[in-house]
Amino acid sequence: MNLSRRDFTRLSALGLAAQLAPQFSRAQSGDRKIGYCIIGLGRIADHFMRGIQETGNSKVTALVSGHREKAEKIAAQYGVPKSSIYSYENMDSIRDNHDVDAVYVALPNSMHAEYTIRSAKAGKHVLCEKPMAVSVAEAQAMIDACKAANVKLMIAYRCHYETTNLRAVKLIRDGALGQLQSIQSAFGFNCGAGEWRLDKPMAGGGPLMDVGIYCLNATRYLTGEEPASISAYAHTNSSDPRFRTVEENVSWITKFPSGVVASCNTTYGAPMDGYFRVYGSKGWLEVNPAFVYGGLRLTAEYSGEGDKRVKLDEPNPEKDPSQFAKEADHFSNCVLHNQTPQSPGEEGLRDMQYISEIYKSAGVVTA
Amino acid sequence: MNLSRRDFTRLSALGLAAQLAPQFSRAQSGDRKIGYCIIGLGRIADHFMRGIQETGNSKVTALVSGHREKAEKIAAQYGVPKSSIYSYENMDSIRDNHDVDAVYVALPNSMHAEYTIRSAKAGKHVLCEKPMAVSVAEAQAMIDACKAANVKLMIAYRCHYETTNLRAVKLIRDGALGQLQSIQSAFGFNCGAGEWRLDKPMAGGGPLMDVGIYCLNATRYLTGEEPASISAYAHTNSSDPRFRTVEENVSWITKFPSGVVASCNTTYGAPMDGYFRVYGSKGWLEVNPAFVYGGLRLTAEYSGEGDKRVKLDEPNPEKDPSQFAKEADHFSNCVLHNQTPQSPGEEGLRDMQYISEIYKSAGVVTA
Repeated sequence: MNLSRRDFTRLSALGLAAQLAPQFSRAQSGDRKIGYCIIGLGRIADHFMRGIQETGNSKVTALVSGHREKAEKIAAQYGVPKSSIYSYENMDSIRDNHDVDAVYVALPNSMHAEYTIRSAKAGKHVLCEKPMAVSVAEAQAMIDACKAANVKLMIAYRCHYETTNLRAVKLIRDGALGQLQSIQSAFGFNCGAGEWRLDKPMAGGGPLMDVGIYCLNATRYLTGEEPASISAYAHTNSSDPRFRTVEENVSWITKFPSGVVASCNTTYGAPMDGYFRVYGSKGWLEVNPAFVYGGLRLTAEYSGEGDKRVKLDEPNPEKDPSQFAKEADHFSNCVLHNQTPQSPGEEGLRDMQYISEIYKSAGVVTA
Repeated sequence: MNLSRRDFTRLSALGLAAQLAPQFSRAQSGDRKIGYCIIGLGRIADHFMRGIQETGNSKVTALVSGHREKAEKIAAQYGVPKSSIYSYENMDSIRDNHDVDAVYVALPNSMHAEYTIRSAKAGKHVLCEKPMAVSVAEAQAMIDACKAANVKLMIAYRCHYETTNLRAVKLIRDGALGQLQSIQSAFGFNCGAGEWRLDKPMAGGGPLMDVGIYCLNATRYLTGEEPASISAYAHTNSSDPRFRTVEENVSWITKFPSGVVASCNTTYGAPMDGYFRVYGSKGWLEVNPAFVYGGLRLTAEYSGEGDKRVKLDEPNPEKDPSQFAKEADHFSNCVLHNQTPQSPGEEGLRDMQYISEIYKSAGVVTA
């Protein structure tokens, strides 16, 4: 790490290290709705647009796609005029579209930087999917571009806005588990051959970039601290044609300034439901599954007041708005009320820095 | 590590690295029963003696204790003559007790080496509790002493003889999970103040020595491989009076020659039920709890023949003999039939070497 443990401790002490606030700004109805231009019309964009429909402060007002026909179909669905459908070539003219306040960047990782920067230059606020970029340098350039254009930048860390994850953070902050001791987390899946995720120039890296980042980010929001040091191993089955350019498995351990130790795994070679488990002096909690779009569940067991044993088993509330609705609602409120998002560009940049450290420690060659 | 990754791969290839056989030698009734002298009459010795009652090939024939009154009470319970009760001072005269074939060393860790070596010199076979010793040098001296005396030495790794752990190993060896990818394991507890475990001269180390060793050993018997490299972090809350001499938390990652990566946690500062979770290309399995004396449970989900989804949820068989019965049965059979135990001294020595590497990597000062 470039920063010493002492530096990190100081950062933590200054409060710079604990960006995640446990409160969620609920959708508010009002006259003004933030208009989003959706850049990239894949699976996650579909989730996001459906999420937007649940909010009271956001709407889909423009689309950017390489497939005009597909875009027209989606435009009809969301009431977007044909004149607000853009190609990747002419998307810079969203500058002149007053129905567009912000963009949602839902492209392969390698395109996040370019389209964030072009959107910022067009004067639009940017909500960009994770991982923020494929390198630390790109992430920094994105932050710089948004600052220069005086637009907001938020990284779409869904879990920062998701009920069950926030419930876990609140239990920890409220001291239910006592002094935190350690965390375990994992997330991975068997990646199908031919996916762009397996192409390093598009993806920037393998499972660590794509899903391991959830575990990494979780260890940070659960502790409210920045890693003091990270050590990692990676392995790739070189005879598996899926793994010609990206790694297959990564395991890493992190030590936080307070002394919390965390161990994490990610893979593209096995089914590995995302979860985290947090141990403290007074008990433990687990969210499992923790990182998927719905159906999350928190279980916990700890010594409550008067040493009374508390056992929790809390599924996601049934009527909970979708995570995508919540992140859109939050970003729109930030734009409407000129506030800084809970997961700004700097949050994404930090993960990029740690990912870079993990790859370095594991001996994985990065771009 | 002193051995390179290539060395370890070679060791594995030679079969030296995969000592664990999935079969269990069931108790057999017969005329000859191996007589055990129990050295140390604490909680685990009590479990062991009750386990012996379940076997057909073992019996308690002598006791070593510093508390004569307690020893006489237990002797009466197990039909041990008063003349076969020894003190720590005169225990060497078990040499002349023909009812004693073997000893079971159930003392604090720092006393394992001395009493193993004295027993070997008295011509008795030795079943010694884990961790084998408090240092690599002691472990080696124990092996040497048993070899010189031509007696058998087994380390009491219960899980090597336990039904559910062996079921997990068999599923893996049979290829149910496909190519192994990664393992997560943890085991720890909130250690009560005043326990000998917290006294480094007695214990040799903290939770890693005591319970983390289960995770370490499990990653080895689950993969059937020896670690190629290990990296670790430790943390101790120095303001907690329990942790004046031993560490509080350890996290480590291990890379195995085949590429399997494992991440583990242990603690004396939080409740942390012991478990392991193994991920392979075709599915996963979990044993949780995995390391306690009973009530183990295996769950698994994988693609079986013809890609048929297989889901397992297998609690310990109700009529299963206790783990202590099984380990006693196994060692007695080894003595009766002049066979090498599945968990010989060399198995304990390896864990001592890896523990030493983990402490070194984590910057924990060892004895």
